[in-house]
Amino acid sequence: MALATPDGVGAIGIIRVSGENAFSICSKFFYKKNGESIDIAKLKTHTIHFGLVKEGDVVLDEILLSVFLAPNSYTAENTVELSCHGSRFIQQQLMQLLIRYGARLAEAGEFTFRAFFNKRLDLAQAEAVADLIASTSATSHQVAMQQMRGGFSGKIKILRENLVNFASLIELELDFSEEDVEFADRNDLKQLILSIQKVIHRLVNSFELGNVIKNGIPVAIVGKPNAGKSTLLNALLEEDRAIVSEIPGTTRDTIEDEISIDGILFRFIDTAGIRPSSDLIEQIGISRTFEKIQKSSIIVYLFDVHELTSKGLQTELDEVKEHVNEHSQVIVVGNKIDKEDLAYTEREFAAFKDIIFISAKERHNIDSLRKRFVDLFDSRTVNVTETVVTNARHVQALQNAGSALEKIYDGLAKNISGELLSIDIKNALHHLGLITGEVTTDDLLKNIFSKFCIGK
Amino acid sequence: MALATPDGVGAIGIIRVSGENAFSICSKFFYKKNGESIDIAKLKTHTIHFGLVKEGDVVLDEILLSVFLAPNSYTAENTVELSCHGSRFIQQQLMQLLIRYGARLAEAGEFTFRAFFNKRLDLAQAEAVADLIASTSATSHQVAMQQMRGGFSGKIKILRENLVNFASLIELELDFSEEDVEFADRNDLKQLILSIQKVIHRLVNSFELGNVIKNGIPVAIVGKPNAGKSTLLNALLEEDRAIVSEIPGTTRDTIEDEISIDGILFRFIDTAGIRPSSDLIEQIGISRTFEKIQKSSIIVYLFDVHELTSKGLQTELDEVKEHVNEHSQVIVVGNKIDKEDLAYTEREFAAFKDIIFISAKERHNIDSLRKRFVDLFDSRTVNVTETVVTNARHVQALQNAGSALEKIYDGLAKNISGELLSIDIKNALHHLGLITGEVTTDDLLKNIFSKFCIGK
Repeated sequence: MALATPDGVGAIGIIRVSGENAFSICSKFFYKKNGESIDIAKLKTHTIHFGLVKEGDVVLDEILLSVFLAPNSYTAENTVELSCHGSRFIQQQLMQLLIRYGARLAEAGEFTFRAFFNKRLDLAQAEAVADLIASTSATSHQVAMQQMRGGFSGKIKILRENLVNFASLIELELDFSEEDVEFADRNDLKQLILSIQKVIHRLVNSFELGNVIKNGIPVAIVGKPNAGKSTLLNALLEEDRAIVSEIPGTTRDTIEDEISIDGILFRFIDTAGIRPSSDLIEQIGISRTFEKIQKSSIIVYLFDVHELTSKGLQTELDEVKEHVNEHSQVIVVGNKIDKEDLAYTEREFAAFKDIIFISAKERHNIDSLRKRFVDLFDSRTVNVTETVVTNARHVQALQNAGSALEKIYDGLAKNISGELLSIDIKNALHHLGLITGEVTTDDLLKNIFSKFCIGK
Repeated sequence: MALATPDGVGAIGIIRVSGENAFSICSKFFYKKNGESIDIAKLKTHTIHFGLVKEGDVVLDEILLSVFLAPNSYTAENTVELSCHGSRFIQQQLMQLLIRYGARLAEAGEFTFRAFFNKRLDLAQAEAVADLIASTSATSHQVAMQQMRGGFSGKIKILRENLVNFASLIELELDFSEEDVEFADRNDLKQLILSIQKVIHRLVNSFELGNVIKNGIPVAIVGKPNAGKSTLLNALLEEDRAIVSEIPGTTRDTIEDEISIDGILFRFIDTAGIRPSSDLIEQIGISRTFEKIQKSSIIVYLFDVHELTSKGLQTELDEVKEHVNEHSQVIVVGNKIDKEDLAYTEREFAAFKDIIFISAKERHNIDSLRKRFVDLFDSRTVNVTETVVTNARHVQALQNAGSALEKIYDGLAKNISGELLSIDIKNALHHLGLITGEVTTDDLLKNIFSKFCIGK
């Protein structure tokens, strides 16, 4: 039993009760409006019932009770959802009542764990539930949704099944070992391993994308002091907030430097201004900035168009580009344009194609910059509708499976015995099984489900 | 359409859609798991359906959809509740989807207003919904629950009906005025008015109780500096918090100086220490303390048992009691006892019966003090199961009705004409009708429902 809605005051609060005693416990305090008692076990699944929560003559609340009969519930167990008035006091009283009648508080993630335990979700799907709830942009949401609906698990299962087939053929050989037959064609196995490795390779590579989708694409805004970095960041954040706050009640706990543009999350990295300095502290700050540039996927180089000539800009860009890693993209942005000078400015910097002129203060042309962010993301990505790995645990398991497959391949080249092949194949199967939870350990499960919120 | 669950991240978020187009709008994006479309209007009332929210090929979420057919819903209109994953992003996307398909955001309190407009709740019941959600103690909750379930409204309706009967008899007289008949027995009317006034009087008086139930019983802890006032307050609050926090996820936004003991809310009033002082600022502080004592129902006089003799205590109490209003109760508490000296201390102060000895620092005997709070509340109250008025608007209307009734009574004594009597009776009916909403004004409704949260 646990509160399933967010903590706080609202119109409705929902307490979810799951398990074999869910119906009998709730039948003890739930009554029809006329005071008659109800046997919840006799109600139809997926129906809603208005009634009273009563203890003795005291009516605690008028509630709606929803009945879910196993296995057609979130946990695949008998489940009751009590939809009460959204006051903390009532929710608390109702939970205390449930405890008095024999329920206990669910642990964090316990409902999802039970869904996994009862085989309604596999492990990767269960993990996606947490990602889904945490997702703050359209792409991270779509990737989590696809994973929850089983897209990723399906891929892994096919890989595993093919390997299992081979493993059983080899086991068969071992049974007939004295007769020296070969049921499992070694060439077919080689081909299979190559094709599995190709898929694993693609999945592992997708993690870089998956990671930026989940955590946001790191963007560094760099430039000299007074180039207008903070003003630009504010301009970008402000527009984002204006969009978010159109729907009241959905204001999120703003992480000051994240924005979602066209459903893609960008994460801004704080950098110190770059300038020649003899001050040691400032030098440290600047060298940190260069480190951060290294880790950014997009670098916005911002300069004041009134401060630099075309030549000066080239010098500065050359210095910045020394620190940029090969996968990153640099966007050059000229700030502080005013309309009168635009033609002149454009001529001055004509040599730099793709330069964007803005006025951060006047919120002028910020949209072009936003569009450029999105274009860069699109150009560097594989198709998001393909399976994307977003979970470091999965990458680890995939990499381990890849190593095991490599060992099999080497073994095949050296013509090693069926026994040894069998061990290596089992090892690969183990790592693939860890992803979907066909193989688990207590530590692993504890680690995964303890990260859930209570009530999920 | 509005989010009905608290804003935030949880397992479940619910969006409620109500109105004649609720079914057709939601049918546009809700699909069965296999992708088939569904006509929600054809589903049975009070049933729950698992399915997908889809726009084109993009699956936004897997949700549970609950169907409520008019008039059997909260608003008495066709209603759909969409139970989605509890992420702000998903909730926001879902609401934007609803807006695209023709829904609009509900105003604060609009669902409850519709329940009132569609005569599922009267006005006093609707107001009780807000009180119910805001209630933080067992008594305030019970009073709100009783009012929501119609207890108070029922009382008012009986009063009104009796008066309406008389009003119609008098109207009848006016129709036959040329014949000089008396259908309405003036003595019966006098008796009725006396009995109604008695009920109104009791209800108006119950407001003092209702008010303390709703807002907490004001308690002042007074005493000299260093008597241990803050330590005592902390000791009281701490125990309360320990109780509250037994159930995770229900920690409330602590109003630092409110505690609920045995379901009764006590509100602690901050006071400056009392001591003779020539400092002007301090004198002002002390005189404010005496003002606050005036307004408190319970005064805890706290003193350090090592600082005062029995005689000194008497002098101090005499001074404090000068400022205590006649309805208040004083609890004398000796602080800083240590076990060795208890017998000696008890002898010293034997003249003061009902004194409580505690050690706030050691959390010793705090329970006795808590129990005394509850006992004092019980002894001064009428039975809480009787109807209690908690709403200042209702008291105002009751008082106005009372004045109108008095005018009728005076009129009867002076033998005034049926026409004038009729006007006075209508006036009394008007004020009683304002309570349950049989008489309303736009301003009144706006004022009441704008205080609700969105989604209710």
